[in-house]
Amino acid sequence: MRPAGVFVVFEGGDGVGKTTQVERLCRRLAAADREVLRTFEPGDSPVGGRIRSIVLDPATGDLAPRAEALLYAADKAQHLYAVVRPALERGAVVVCDRYVDSMLAYQGAGRVLEVAEVEQVARWATEDLQPQLTVLLDVDPRQAVQVKAEHDRLEAAGASFHDRARAYFLDLADRDPGRYLVLAARRDRDELAEEVWRRVQPLLSDPSGRLPS
Amino acid sequence: MRPAGVFVVFEGGDGVGKTTQVERLCRRLAAADREVLRTFEPGDSPVGGRIRSIVLDPATGDLAPRAEALLYAADKAQHLYAVVRPALERGAVVVCDRYVDSMLAYQGAGRVLEVAEVEQVARWATEDLQPQLTVLLDVDPRQAVQVKAEHDRLEAAGASFHDRARAYFLDLADRDPGRYLVLAARRDRDELAEEVWRRVQPLLSDPSGRLPS
Repeated sequence: MRPAGVFVVFEGGDGVGKTTQVERLCRRLAAADREVLRTFEPGDSPVGGRIRSIVLDPATGDLAPRAEALLYAADKAQHLYAVVRPALERGAVVVCDRYVDSMLAYQGAGRVLEVAEVEQVARWATEDLQPQLTVLLDVDPRQAVQVKAEHDRLEAAGASFHDRARAYFLDLADRDPGRYLVLAARRDRDELAEEVWRRVQPLLSDPSGRLPS
Repeated sequence: MRPAGVFVVFEGGDGVGKTTQVERLCRRLAAADREVLRTFEPGDSPVGGRIRSIVLDPATGDLAPRAEALLYAADKAQHLYAVVRPALERGAVVVCDRYVDSMLAYQGAGRVLEVAEVEQVARWATEDLQPQLTVLLDVDPRQAVQVKAEHDRLEAAGASFHDRARAYFLDLADRDPGRYLVLAARRDRDELAEEVWRRVQPLLSDPSGRLPS
């Protein structure tokens, strides 16, 4: 059964301003007297931290692509079970920095695994619990300052990893527009916060309500 | 593509004599001048060891059932990628103590997750690579001395966990008899080793050949 709370996710590339918008929304929710849980993936649980350390530790060496995807999926399963779902069940608003879309966009952009297969695993891990709203902060990777250096390197190698990740994010939003708010990330941050709030506010009184796209 | 080596798996409950039969077979293979890799699941890779420690560490606390299954699947993916497949590709005989069947039998016996769903995840993790031969050492759990104490505890609780695991093992063998050798584990160990050898020997000259059931 759908829990009572509200689940809002922020997605998008690195350096697009997710942290700022997550903070703004959480402050506004707290000011509106809502219990807010601010969290992130991957890693925001004790088990998640250990899983993340396996993936990121250089000593891990050559990690099988499927093992990596399954470790991220395990992290998501634990995060949902131990952090997200309990908060939603007591009626909190959960604001999460990255969720399933990031896993799909980056695994897809890496071009090693079939995204459809990774998606099956990720949906199973998260018991197919979808956020009521996903805010996608979209920007041309060439204009996202913080990833510029890495992007240059990837461009030089002839691969446009971040372009592909962006296309996956946008494609996921296209598949389910009623559940997404796609915003041009380079706009004024106050304006962005205002648009996010306009979409979140009605969910607070009617968490089951899906908004028209 | 199917690699050149031969992949033999031993399955069955704890205390049925898998270790003895694995040792016997490996000695015989070495005596026949075959390169042998003896291995086990879960855990026989550096990453696997760290994954296993997460699952078994009491500090992990309440692990989500899907997270546990995904961690075991990640262990399998890494073991296949880093240990089993490279050995098979150079033509070795890989003798593995437990593989996918154990994961399914025990997850199934735990009755928390749908086995069919766990199977999809496990098959994806292992790239659907199946052993040429699985030796199932079968015994009534009441007669497997080493698990007797635990079994008594479970029986007392009204649950027959090991009975259910056994039924899953036998069911997997029934589904694909040409690939299985089911042996009554309490028989004489020399006789058992002889029967295993009779099934393994033809695979050494024709690894692709499946035997009649």
